[in-house]
Amino acid sequence: MGLKVRYADGKIGEVTDPAQALEIYRHSTSHLMAAAVCSLFPGTHLGIGPAVGDGFFYDFDRPTNFTEDDLPKIEAKMRELALRDLEYQPRIVAKEEAVELFSGKGEDLKVELIEDRAGQQLSCYRLGDLVDFCLGPHVYSTGLIHPDSFRVMSLAGSHWKGDESNRRLQRIYGTAFLTPDELQAHLTQLEEARKRDHRKLGRELDLFSVSEEAGPGLIFWHPKGTRVRLVIEDFLRQVLLDRGYEFVTTPHIARGALWKTSGHYDYYRANMYVFDIEDEEFVIKPMNCPGHIQIYKSAMRSYRDLPIRFAEFGTVYRHEKSGVLHGMLRVRGFTQDDAHIFCTREQVYKEIADLLDLVLFVMQAFAFDKYQVELSVRDESRKQDYAGTEEDWQMAESALVEAMTAKGMAWKRMEGEAVFYGPKIDVKLIDAIGRPWQLSTVQFDFTLPKRFDLAYIGPDGQPHQPVMLHRALLGSVERFMGVLIEHFAGAFPVWLAPVQATVIPIAARHQPYAGQLFHRLTSAGLRVELDDRNEKMGYKIREAQARKVPFMLVVGDKEAQSGQVSVRSRSEGDKGAQSVESFVATITGYIEARSVKP
Amino acid sequence: MGLKVRYADGKIGEVTDPAQALEIYRHSTSHLMAAAVCSLFPGTHLGIGPAVGDGFFYDFDRPTNFTEDDLPKIEAKMRELALRDLEYQPRIVAKEEAVELFSGKGEDLKVELIEDRAGQQLSCYRLGDLVDFCLGPHVYSTGLIHPDSFRVMSLAGSHWKGDESNRRLQRIYGTAFLTPDELQAHLTQLEEARKRDHRKLGRELDLFSVSEEAGPGLIFWHPKGTRVRLVIEDFLRQVLLDRGYEFVTTPHIARGALWKTSGHYDYYRANMYVFDIEDEEFVIKPMNCPGHIQIYKSAMRSYRDLPIRFAEFGTVYRHEKSGVLHGMLRVRGFTQDDAHIFCTREQVYKEIADLLDLVLFVMQAFAFDKYQVELSVRDESRKQDYAGTEEDWQMAESALVEAMTAKGMAWKRMEGEAVFYGPKIDVKLIDAIGRPWQLSTVQFDFTLPKRFDLAYIGPDGQPHQPVMLHRALLGSVERFMGVLIEHFAGAFPVWLAPVQATVIPIAARHQPYAGQLFHRLTSAGLRVELDDRNEKMGYKIREAQARKVPFMLVVGDKEAQSGQVSVRSRSEGDKGAQSVESFVATITGYIEARSVKP
Repeated sequence: MGLKVRYADGKIGEVTDPAQALEIYRHSTSHLMAAAVCSLFPGTHLGIGPAVGDGFFYDFDRPTNFTEDDLPKIEAKMRELALRDLEYQPRIVAKEEAVELFSGKGEDLKVELIEDRAGQQLSCYRLGDLVDFCLGPHVYSTGLIHPDSFRVMSLAGSHWKGDESNRRLQRIYGTAFLTPDELQAHLTQLEEARKRDHRKLGRELDLFSVSEEAGPGLIFWHPKGTRVRLVIEDFLRQVLLDRGYEFVTTPHIARGALWKTSGHYDYYRANMYVFDIEDEEFVIKPMNCPGHIQIYKSAMRSYRDLPIRFAEFGTVYRHEKSGVLHGMLRVRGFTQDDAHIFCTREQVYKEIADLLDLVLFVMQAFAFDKYQVELSVRDESRKQDYAGTEEDWQMAESALVEAMTAKGMAWKRMEGEAVFYGPKIDVKLIDAIGRPWQLSTVQFDFTLPKRFDLAYIGPDGQPHQPVMLHRALLGSVERFMGVLIEHFAGAFPVWLAPVQATVIPIAARHQPYAGQLFHRLTSAGLRVELDDRNEKMGYKIREAQARKVPFMLVVGDKEAQSGQVSVRSRSEGDKGAQSVESFVATITGYIEARSVKP
Repeated sequence: MGLKVRYADGKIGEVTDPAQALEIYRHSTSHLMAAAVCSLFPGTHLGIGPAVGDGFFYDFDRPTNFTEDDLPKIEAKMRELALRDLEYQPRIVAKEEAVELFSGKGEDLKVELIEDRAGQQLSCYRLGDLVDFCLGPHVYSTGLIHPDSFRVMSLAGSHWKGDESNRRLQRIYGTAFLTPDELQAHLTQLEEARKRDHRKLGRELDLFSVSEEAGPGLIFWHPKGTRVRLVIEDFLRQVLLDRGYEFVTTPHIARGALWKTSGHYDYYRANMYVFDIEDEEFVIKPMNCPGHIQIYKSAMRSYRDLPIRFAEFGTVYRHEKSGVLHGMLRVRGFTQDDAHIFCTREQVYKEIADLLDLVLFVMQAFAFDKYQVELSVRDESRKQDYAGTEEDWQMAESALVEAMTAKGMAWKRMEGEAVFYGPKIDVKLIDAIGRPWQLSTVQFDFTLPKRFDLAYIGPDGQPHQPVMLHRALLGSVERFMGVLIEHFAGAFPVWLAPVQATVIPIAARHQPYAGQLFHRLTSAGLRVELDDRNEKMGYKIREAQARKVPFMLVVGDKEAQSGQVSVRSRSEGDKGAQSVESFVATITGYIEARSVKP
């Protein structure tokens, strides 16, 4: 059953495509909101009101500011109008007539839009007292908009035509779904995402901050955040060493000339921070590749040395406008878990296959079980715009496809989405509330080996050009941390938790035993805190719970006498008294298994 | 017995102070060299020829360049003149007479020096045919200069009065000691230092490189260098965590405004790299302190939270002229093992005492047993030039002195050597060939807590200003690595060695067993290489020895059959066959003990 709509020419139709239906539904709800606003706040003038993203907005021009208190009133008025089953009435009018009509209502912005339009005829829709210049289609009548299927969400400032030099408008955001259930599901996910917001949790759990004094988009990792980061880096380091990677360390600045050789100076200049040393341009590195290439080039390489896999937690800086920065997810400085593999053409397939295993292994370690894979290939119609030969692209694509096939992976083929220097695989991980995050990437590079004239001596004694792969698993440590915080809602698994257990003495007389316990656990390599403040036990437990500490170890007379510990789990509550050995064995088991429970 | 000298006024005397005697001896040897040069190369004119550093030089003006081949000839002529026992004959002359004398010889530079001088009389010394304008004193005669006590060392370019816009001169460096034995000891140390040169060993052992393409003073750590670095950092991290430090991570760039608050923008600007983001100045950090302060300030601190000890391996960039850069020892980018301690005034003494223990513990771990300590205090005559109150300085100095006294340390008091923001202790470590290296530092800071308005809430409920200590143990990881390479002459102790053992199969048929052994050792966490190249055993052993690998594990028929391994130590040679368990136990013992043997 489709959505009954009315087109601008007056024809009635039915839209069955769900995405198309949803867009029309939202657009119509936007008009409904405009009608409600104009009815409640006479003298308000109209900007535009499209469906966008996961809802819609309408821009209004009004001397007085809307307040948060107005939003429920607007929503109530919308319900009232919806229940009156008003028709969306289209009409084709001559341009001059439309100009006259909207001028008469004082709708200058609409007049400007109409005058911008080519053609002598255009369409308007009337909804109750509201007349809007609009292409349609719309739902047949407001009776089709379920009164519990929409929500007025928020206020924001905006500018006419998105240009800051234009008139300032007031934007009201709303959302709507085809059914009340879908709206509820969306609101629940929003609420869940809000609770998981890594900026809020980062503050509450004292993990990181951004300092206005130091500048936007630059992350200061606090001790607790750094603990988590070090666990992640140590884990990854061992995984990579076990797999034949070698770590290198490269400087954060380099001559501009290096970035001219790499090509970044020409095509990436706007994102690079450039400065002078002794009248010569230097660059703060936006990428680690040219640095790893310097090390590759520091010695003559033989086919017997390949594959060479250089890894680095390399901190790079890239310019982003301050307006788009967002917590740890979009920053100006971040540490890539970067690696570059230099290998022969014969070695490519195995390297790709190993990389896919590695991506899945690492992501499972962080409790990401679901993922989407995208294979980005050339736009076949403009092959001349890409680096590398026909043979290069075929070899690369077939290595990627074969490896994914062998792993039984499903992937989406993204035509024309490859970067110019080679095809790539991007892996999007699905978090605990179903949101995809682009994290891992495996990219072929046909251009840097050529630009830097890389070579290895083959079995034939002649120089050959190696294949180069760029790859990141986490992507950026900052972004990954942001995603992890939201994925776990701040309740890190024991192996990652900045504080794995808090020792809570019930009274002052239990502090000596609590202190012994603290040292015992710390010596076992655990990250433990001792809460010896002069506070009630219940308060300390609630606070540790709020800080999402996996285990609270309560010790009183009974525990001190028996040399035991009363264990409380953040997710399972009271686990009763047990020996210290038993607790150490339990928690160590969770850590070694990288378990997400308890 | 002193050195017989003749003063400019003709008086004869004896100098007994060894340092003063050595300087006169070298100055006289410099004149001897000038006499030899003028005799061998007529038409050569004179610049100046003082005693400097560990020898002397003389600057000459001559149209033809000296060559390395000339140096032994000059040295031979000096010996000849020395054996002729020529006197250093002083004479007081009137200024006009001196000008006339040197003009007549075409010695323009001497004339210029004479004309620059105030007074109407001055002194000259004659030595054979050489007449020099000189204040003296000199040794009585060349017979006092032992012919085996000096050496002509090297050639260099120089400019008159050290000014590049002046005439270019040719400088010849030499050295001299009061006895031939001391000269020999010095030459042996120079030769030893040359063999230990970290730039040479860094290349031979594939530890690091500097890339002309990327720019001077920027270190690229190769895989083997990075392995050593990671061992050092992991060791230090655990040591610090055990001592109540917390690691933080701060960005490499920050607003210029932050550096204005800190004061660096005003007094350190020439060493800072500055760039623009969206028309605002940003700085690549030359120090980590303002970053750690941002984290301190991110929360309200209570006296119960103190001391707070933030540590970071923080990479900083500071401008150095390209001419002074030197391998890893003087660079533009380096990673400080930095920490900042924020504490109350009452906590200062214990923090200092703990820091001194920590310095000694860490340095002993790296086999530095000897050290010199310097306490830098204010210049009492210009107290107004220093930050902090009288009470601050007294408290700080007495805390430093008490802590050193309690440890039984000897120290040298450096009056007026304190930085303006507080007193400090510098520790110079003495390396294996007796050279001092300034590595560790502990500094009070009375200015940053004030500039950043740092506070903690005291037991009285009022805000108080914390004391701030800066400290580094290694100083910079790059510089420390350079020093370590020279200290150990590249033969790192087993716990630090980039490759701890090399498995060497005697023939191709031993490769399966060698492979098993390799995996067995790798699984035990050892850094092992398998040399399965098709080369002779002797060649492989010599090569491993040249790469200073601590253990070579040779496996042939006997070892494969018995499941043993023939162990060869880089320092002790053949250790015979033993079980794999026994070898693992031995090497693990060395590693855990951080032993410098074998």
